[in-house]
This record gives sequence, C-alpha cells and structure tokens, in this order.
Amino acid sequence: MQIVVVGSVALDTVQTPWGEAYDALGGSATYFSLTAVRQAEVGLVAVVGEDLPDSALELFGQKGVDLAGLERTEGKCFRWGGRYHADINHRDTLFTQLNVFEHFHPKLPESYRKADILFLANIHPALQMEVLEQAQKPRLVAVDTMNLWIDSARDELLEVLRRVDLVFLNDEEVRQLSGRYSLPEAVAQVQAMGPGIVVVKKGEHGALLFDGKRCFALPALVLDQVVDPTGAGDTFAGGFLGHVASKETIDHDVLREAMVRGTVMASFATEGFSVDGLRDLSSEAIADRREELRRLTSWPDGSA
Amino acid sequence: MQIVVVGSVALDTVQTPWGEAYDALGGSATYFSLTAVRQAEVGLVAVVGEDLPDSALELFGQKGVDLAGLERTEGKCFRWGGRYHADINHRDTLFTQLNVFEHFHPKLPESYRKADILFLANIHPALQMEVLEQAQKPRLVAVDTMNLWIDSARDELLEVLRRVDLVFLNDEEVRQLSGRYSLPEAVAQVQAMGPGIVVVKKGEHGALLFDGKRCFALPALVLDQVVDPTGAGDTFAGGFLGHVASKETIDHDVLREAMVRGTVMASFATEGFSVDGLRDLSSEAIADRREELRRLTSWPDGSA
Repeated sequence: MQIVVVGSVALDTVQTPWGEAYDALGGSATYFSLTAVRQAEVGLVAVVGEDLPDSALELFGQKGVDLAGLERTEGKCFRWGGRYHADINHRDTLFTQLNVFEHFHPKLPESYRKADILFLANIHPALQMEVLEQAQKPRLVAVDTMNLWIDSARDELLEVLRRVDLVFLNDEEVRQLSGRYSLPEAVAQVQAMGPGIVVVKKGEHGALLFDGKRCFALPALVLDQVVDPTGAGDTFAGGFLGHVASKETIDHDVLREAMVRGTVMASFATEGFSVDGLRDLSSEAIADRREELRRLTSWPDGSA
Repeated sequence: MQIVVVGSVALDTVQTPWGEAYDALGGSATYFSLTAVRQAEVGLVAVVGEDLPDSALELFGQKGVDLAGLERTEGKCFRWGGRYHADINHRDTLFTQLNVFEHFHPKLPESYRKADILFLANIHPALQMEVLEQAQKPRLVAVDTMNLWIDSARDELLEVLRRVDLVFLNDEEVRQLSGRYSLPEAVAQVQAMGPGIVVVKKGEHGALLFDGKRCFALPALVLDQVVDPTGAGDTFAGGFLGHVASKETIDHDVLREAMVRGTVMASFATEGFSVDGLRDLSSEAIADRREELRRLTSWPDGSA
C-alpha cells in the first residue's frame, strides 16, 4: 500500500449562509482518501456504524480506495454538526457525537503495515500512536491535529510528534502548540519537537511550507463562491501526500509541488457540500485550476 | 513633480512587546514619501507644528523629498499613540491628538498641480477631495482610507472613490466598504464605485491586486522579527507607486512588479520603530530581499 490513512468517516450536518447538508458523507479520512487516491494506492482505516449509506461504500469502491481497514460495527456513525457564518474562516461546532468512534481502536490489516506513507488524520493522539506502533518503517509519517488535543492531550501529542516527519497545522495551532507568536519562531519550536517539515494552513490566505530552514509561501485561489469549507484541510493533505507518494524522492521541489496540488484540490472541496466538489472532478479541471493558480501567483515576465 | 502625496507627518508613541518609541517621526506621508522618493520625485503636502524636530526636516531633505507643500504653523504636531500585542496584526489606539491637523486645508504649490501621480493617504475624505480639486489631470490617482471614514464619512468617501483610479484597502475594509464577505464580490463592488484597480493588503498574509478582472496574489515575506508594523501600509503604497512612477505605461506587469516592490519595502518598515528600518537602506539590501521574496514564492523548477 502506498498510503494508509487513519481518521474519521462521518456523517456531517453543515449549515452555511448558502445552504445546508444533513447527515452527508464527511470525515477526515473520507476527504483525504478520495483525493489522494487519484495519485496513489490508498488504504483507509476507520470505523463506521450500521447507518453508513451504501452509496458511501460505493463511492469509495468506485474511486478505488482500499477498504480492508474499514471496520463496520454495531451502532451509529460518528456525527459532526457545524455552522459557518459569512466569515467563512470561522465556524461553530453545534454537536459532536462520537458513537462508534468512542471505543475505536484502529487495526492495520497485514497489507497496510508496510505502507510507504502514513497519514494520521485529526483523531486523539493516543489512537494515532496505536497506528504508529503497527506500521513498519514508512518512508514518511504525516500528522494532523487540532486545538482540542493541543490543550487536552498535549503529552500524548508530543509523543506522536517525536515520531513523525511532517505536521499539518493551521496558523493558530502552530502558535498554540509552540507558545510563540512569530511564525518562524513558532515553526522552529515545532520542528524541535520532531517533524522536520511543517505545513502551516491559513485557509483563504494560503499555506506555508517549512522544510528545514527553507520556506515556500503559496496563496490560495481566489474563489468566487465558497459553499462549504468543511474538509478543505484534509483534502489539502490528500493532494499533498498523493503527490509525494507518486515521487520516488522527497526533496524540496517535490514538497513545493505537493503544496500546489494540495491547494488546487482543497479549492474544489470548498465549492460544494460534503464531497460533492471532488466527486466528478476531471483531470482536465485539475490541470486548468493549477494553471489558474500559476497565473495568479506569477511574477511579471522578465523582471528577474 | 512625479508624485504628490497628501497625508500626515506625525509624532508617534508606540508600544510593542519588544520595546517602545516616544514622539518618534511617523505619519502616512512620512513613510510614503521616504519610500517612493527612491524611485521618483516626491512632493509632500502636510502640516506640522513648531515642535517637529529639525532632524525630521533634515531627513526629508537628505533623502530628496520636496517640502514646498509642507506647511509649518503654530501649535503642536499631529500625535498618535498605539499599542501592539503579541498578535502583531492587531493594535489598540491609545490616543489621537489632531493638533495642527484640526484646521488643516491642504494647498498644492503651483509646482505640484501637474503631478503625474497623486496619492491621497489616509485622511478625512473631505480633505482628499480638496486636493483632488487642485490637481490637474494626474495620470493616476490612488487613495487610502480606514474603517473610521468608511463608517463616519461614507458619502464623502464615495465621492472621492468616484474620482480615483486605485484604492488601497485591507481585507476588513474592503468587506466593510462593500458589505460583501466574498473577496472577489467585495472587490467588484468597490470597483463599481470608481477605482478600477483595488489593492487588498493583508499584513503578514500578503496582498492581492485586482486590476479589472485580473488578479495577482503575493505572500508577505516571512520575517523573523517584526518590531513595529506602524507605517507598513504607507510604505507599501510608497514602494508600489514609486515603481509605477518610474514606468511610462501602467499595465498589469507594471502593477505586479509594484506589488513586489511594495511588499519588499514594507518588510523593512516593520523591522524598526518609526522610520528606522528605511533610514539607511541600501539598494543592495532591497535587491537581496526582492530575491528572497522570489525564492519564497517560486514554484518548483520545470513543473509547468
């Protein structure tokens, strides 16, 4: 398996000023795997309840996501409800129902243990550690987390960070985790915790890559209409690691292109509710949007 | 005269977590003119009191800023006091003393009236209009403003906007002025008010240029230490319009390079209190930082 992701497959209820979705397919591992699978073999580790619609399984199957690690158990799926306001960068969580996730202990099928790349999506660091223990020397381990775990499970998170190569954080999280406001200082602190590569996600303001002392800054696309930003971060990670998986070496140029791919894919995720923006996406549409991002960020010709 | 700027020459008292400055040279026209004068003839229109230190006049003189439009009058200089916190993107205004600015009516000396470029820095829109009335067909009129005038002098501001070509706004201001949250929609609304070119300044997140329907996104430099962001926006405008003044035509490439110049110059302004970061700046240091910004934003080689 090229990439193994552990995270959530969930049913999301989302309200935005432009509409709403009820019990729609979501979850970090969902957005990630449906994106990364375009460029790599992806195995999914998660737990779902009996109420996951068959259409969700069909979608994973149709896109080629390996489900050997997907546990189906009695009970209901993990559910999350959130509301976005006109300022689409901020959201209120309306409810979180762990359901089958409450007693979940991820188990890697034999075929996943030699994964090339491991992505520990945003779940409790103790579960992330359980996955790490079952994997055999991945080429790259990447992790996502959130303010909740930085606050409430800091020691376990630090334990995980010591063992990973790359961390995805938003700018608030990198400051919260490090206790530093200056971004380069904050990132240096986080790098000293373990991961040499830090990707700072800033939503509509783009993303920053810190790879050792080198840095790459990439703006986000300027989108006419963001419908639902849920899952944009996991889609970004899926594009990013999907690209890395498709390359034999991981150098700074590969990571820069991974930033581009992540940014392009995330833009599609925000254009529809649930995974609608990713469902019928053509390679041409992706290539066109990459070109749009290049034009948006291009310096004037001949000015060097 | 290539560029005429009307704005404030002030004495600022600034506190940051890293130190403080008391009655130090500041003001929008100060930062702007000391920056733009590196690339163009600049005439300054402002009013100062008897307490402006001679060293300030010497600095303008030494850098070549034309002071024919600088009025000295009885009374005290405009004073502003502010405090920044660890989150350097936000500040509290501690006091604003208009002093000699209270009864100021800008007068353009004869030699300024045929200015090629006019920059109406952030002052009351009624004063901006007085300047507009005295100018004779500038090639480009640019304006800056702030939330206070958008709220309290909206009609006069709209009157000014109808007559300008370019507006500098931060992302909050563009949303406040337009009543739209989506940035492309907000910018389109502002363009419909008059200025075809909208520059959205986002502090540490960089800046966006909207020129008709074309857009350019440029990240800010990632700075190890921001000492005092006061004046960064006016320095950005000074770099931007200084570059435009040095070119015969104003096309999209010229505007993109103006964004680069503005971003580079603003980064220096934040590295010291008052105008310290701009005082002894060499052309080599500017060129080096431009190269640093290019490296920071460069896409991987051969990936196109």
